[in-house]
Order: sequence, then structure tokens, then C-alpha cells
Amino acid sequence: MINRLTARIKERKAPVVVGLDPMLSYIPDPVKKAAFAEHGETLSGAAAAVWEYNRTIIDAVCDLVPAVKPQIAMYEQFGIPGLTVYKQTIDYCREKGLIVIGDIKRGDIGSTSAAYAAAHLGRVQVGGNTFAPFAEDFATINPYLGSDGVKPFIDVCRAEKKGIFVLVKTSNPSSGEFQDRRIDGRPLYEWVGEKVAAWGEEAMGEEYSYVGAVVGATYPEMGAILRQLMPRTLILVPGYGAQGGTAADLKPYFKDDGSGAIVNSSRGIIAAWKQEKYAQFGAEKYGAAARQAAKDMIADIRTALSLD
Amino acid sequence: MINRLTARIKERKAPVVVGLDPMLSYIPDPVKKAAFAEHGETLSGAAAAVWEYNRTIIDAVCDLVPAVKPQIAMYEQFGIPGLTVYKQTIDYCREKGLIVIGDIKRGDIGSTSAAYAAAHLGRVQVGGNTFAPFAEDFATINPYLGSDGVKPFIDVCRAEKKGIFVLVKTSNPSSGEFQDRRIDGRPLYEWVGEKVAAWGEEAMGEEYSYVGAVVGATYPEMGAILRQLMPRTLILVPGYGAQGGTAADLKPYFKDDGSGAIVNSSRGIIAAWKQEKYAQFGAEKYGAAARQAAKDMIADIRTALSLD
Repeated sequence: MINRLTARIKERKAPVVVGLDPMLSYIPDPVKKAAFAEHGETLSGAAAAVWEYNRTIIDAVCDLVPAVKPQIAMYEQFGIPGLTVYKQTIDYCREKGLIVIGDIKRGDIGSTSAAYAAAHLGRVQVGGNTFAPFAEDFATINPYLGSDGVKPFIDVCRAEKKGIFVLVKTSNPSSGEFQDRRIDGRPLYEWVGEKVAAWGEEAMGEEYSYVGAVVGATYPEMGAILRQLMPRTLILVPGYGAQGGTAADLKPYFKDDGSGAIVNSSRGIIAAWKQEKYAQFGAEKYGAAARQAAKDMIADIRTALSLD
Repeated sequence: MINRLTARIKERKAPVVVGLDPMLSYIPDPVKKAAFAEHGETLSGAAAAVWEYNRTIIDAVCDLVPAVKPQIAMYEQFGIPGLTVYKQTIDYCREKGLIVIGDIKRGDIGSTSAAYAAAHLGRVQVGGNTFAPFAEDFATINPYLGSDGVKPFIDVCRAEKKGIFVLVKTSNPSSGEFQDRRIDGRPLYEWVGEKVAAWGEEAMGEEYSYVGAVVGATYPEMGAILRQLMPRTLILVPGYGAQGGTAADLKPYFKDDGSGAIVNSSRGIIAAWKQEKYAQFGAEKYGAAARQAAKDMIADIRTALSLD
């Protein structure tokens, strides 16, 4: 899957992921109204609105980008109906040829991590049958518990040719509270990055490993160091746009050949219709606004990387 | 809820949590057979077996212990039907007067953490209605992303009188890879512990804070230091029994008055019927075996703490 992802990034000339992180406030009123008319102002109603909204966004961007990243928290907040739409969204994206990165940030130990890995990337056995419960292609993972927490995911990645992105340095303002603390002269995120590179050796694709890293766009100087420290690690970069990262900030995350990273934007694309810049589309054409925003982001990044 | 939890621990004389972490291999064959007969060897069949098994265990221990801790990964592995049973289990436990600690180990940033907090401890608004999607009483939280990740949970805890347990030092063998690394002469877990104590000040109950900590039973000398560092923090202690922690190891996690900690056992109780020690119950009486194992664990801990 890592080989397919890197190939698809090249093919589409777009190191870009669309974050499918729907908030009800992003969804135009007519979409919500229709969903509530059918299901009431209930969790099912909210989930139905999210589903309709996602489908439109996915249809609008599926030929432009290689991958999407649904944030499971945004579905989990609507309980079982929300998680049902999370699964529907994954299935629909895969049908449309998109690679799906489940932004689940799970992490536990031993058999518990193995259960998460089976749920999201692998299979679970029930009697004589096996099932792939959520069936994302990649998942994001929290490393705080150490190798015991990550290894069960790597085992599944090897068996299923799937991948993970391990949190190394996150994009939020307080990420430094623990991640930047210096240990033997180097910040914790470098030690985690080194570990990610080592874990990655156990699950290599052609050019890059099945074990990737998450490094926020908001810390480009740290991105440069981590790029060097993890030469065969694909870096997933959140924080572009709404969180303050600019295209110029992104250069250090990439190699000179323009490979090595994939940049996420969520709100900036899926809620583009709410921005001044895309106001001409209006609420009804939120899909077209998302498509234009995705095109603009791809062009912005390609210019910054001097790829055009 | 923290006041209710500490009161209930005293009342029942049992600083013990039963971990509801069902693996299919723990469930006696007749229970699985009946579930599969009705639902097939499917995710729904697995979930039905888990539900029947959980109900029996809950009925067997609900008057002995103050709280249960379902591990969501074990439900998530069975997809939507599994998560539906996670929710049913929470509802049933609350009906039976048990306090529910959702072992979800979630952690993200800003609006994403807020979505998780709403999903598990708070409410979500849909049009004019509000819903509590999962409605646990407490949840476990991963601190790697710093205050941005934890604060949205604390806000919900304050509003809803719910609580969290933040991972400080986990019970697994490789937990030291990052958690034990020394920063300015002190291990990371102490810095995290100090932060947990500070976060806790913002959400104090009567004796203990709504912000608790997870510290594994397998590292008692670290438990002693953390007990001192976080004087008003209730410590949730996993790792007793199956993971190697003994009752004698637990003493440092408690204060002299016997308060301050609550110890989890999962497999040791819910799969007691599979142990030599409880073999006389047989597979059919797995509930009675769990009840006896819970009694034995409570007695074991009370003896170690010299409470009897």
C-alpha cells in the first residue's frame, strides 16, 4: 500500500491528502435540513448529513488527490450512527480509488494494540470466517507506550501490506510540552523519529517504509531534521492552512526529488465554501468549492517545491 | 463522579476495577455456539457472544466492586456490532450501579479532542437536541500531544462532573523506551505526572481531582514516587495479576489511609474459569468463577494494605 501511495502521489502530481473531518457547522443548512427531515434532529440525522456531505466532497476531489484522511473522532462524536458513516465513508473512498488514512491515533499494548490493528488494518476471526471491520489502508498511531504498542500494528502491516503513520511531532501549540523536552541533548521527538526509522526497517516497501511518521507543518525547522533522521519514512504533514502552516514551510519535509511527504488539509478544503475566497460558489456548490480549493492547494505546494 | 467513585471504593471496601476486555477465547463454547446459531459466524455473532458473556460477568460482580473498565479495542475489533455492544455494556453497568471507566486511550488536539470528549464523557448537539453518545463516567487519555489534547477533556469533566485518567507510566515492558528517558535529571513520566497534578488542580473534587493518572502495577518504585508527586490524584493501576504485578507491589500506590488508588484486573477475573485455581466451577459457571476471583482479589489487596 505504501508503494501504491507513493506511485499515486507521483501520478497525480499531488502530495496532498484531503482530511474528511466533518463538523456540523461546516455542512450547509439545506443538507442538514434534508437529513433532519428524514431522521429527525438525532445522532442518525447528524450522521446522515455527514454522509451526504462527505459523498459530495469525495466525488468532487477523488480524481485530484491520491488519498483522504477521515478523522474518526468527528464520527465517534455521533455514536454508533456516526461510526457507521465512518465505515461507509471508507468503503466509498476505496470504491472511488482513493487511499484511506484512518486518523485514529490509537495506541495501547499487546493484545489490545493487536485488537485495534485487526479492527482498522487487519482482520478478525469469528469461527470459520474472517472480517476486515473498518478496512482503512493506513492508520495513525500514538507512540507513548513504546514498541509494545506499535509492533502489533507493524505485524499487521506486513501481513496485509498496509501502513501506519506514527505521531512524532504534532502540529499543535503545546506539542512541545513533552515532545520537545531534551534527553541527552536531543528533543524527545528526535528519539521517537529515530525509533520510527528503526521500526520502519522491519517493514520496507520499495522506496519508503510501511511505517510512516506524522510531523506537523507548523514546525519546519524540526521537519528538516526529522526528514534527515528518517530517510525512508514517508511523512504525513498536518497543519497546512487553517493551523497556520504555509506552502513555503513545507519544503523541508520533502526530499529534493519532491517525494517523501504528503500534506493534509481538512477545513481548508472541505469547508472552502465558507471562505471569502470561494464565496462565489455559494453554499449549494460546496463540492465545487472544495474541488477548487484542492486544486489551489496542489498548485501552491507544487510551486513551493518548484515542481512546475 | 470522582467523589462518588472514592465514596464507593470505601463503601465496598474494594479498591478494585473489573476490566471488561472480552476476547473470544475467554468465552465458553456454549455461549459462542448459541450466539453463532442465532447470528452466524459474523461480527454480529461475535458481538452477541460478548454481550451475553459481559452480562453474566457484570451480574456476578456488580455488588462487589465500585467500577468496571471496558477496553474499547476489544469491541472495536468487531466493528459496528462490537461498538454497539460496548455501548450496551456501558448502559447495563450504569443500570447496575457500577461506575464505568472507558479504557479508550484517546488523545488528539483542539476540536478533535473536544469531539472525543463529547463522544465519551459529554454531549453533542444536533439541531435543538443533545445526546450523550457513549456516556462513560471516566475515560483514559494519552498525554503525548500536551495540554491542547487534555484540556478539552478537562472542560467536559468540569461541566459534566466526569473524570479522566491520564497515562503516566504504563505497565508494559517497553513503556520505558520513552516514558523513562531522563529530562533534566528526571524521567519523562515524572514530568507527565507533575503536569497531571497541575491539570488536576483545575478540576478538584472533594479529596481527589477529576483528573486521575494511570500508573502500571509492574513498576512499584515508580508508583511510590508518583504517589508523592500527585497527592490529590487518584491512580488507576493496571497490570495486577496476569501482567505480573502482585498485591504487595501495590502498597506504594496507596496512601496510608488506604485511599488513592484503584486496581484493575481483567483476564484474572473475567476469564477466571480458565484458571486451574477456579477449575471446579467449570465452563458453565464462568460467572461464579469471576465472582470468586473478584472476592479473592479484594481480599488479597486488603491484606497487602493491612486493611483487614
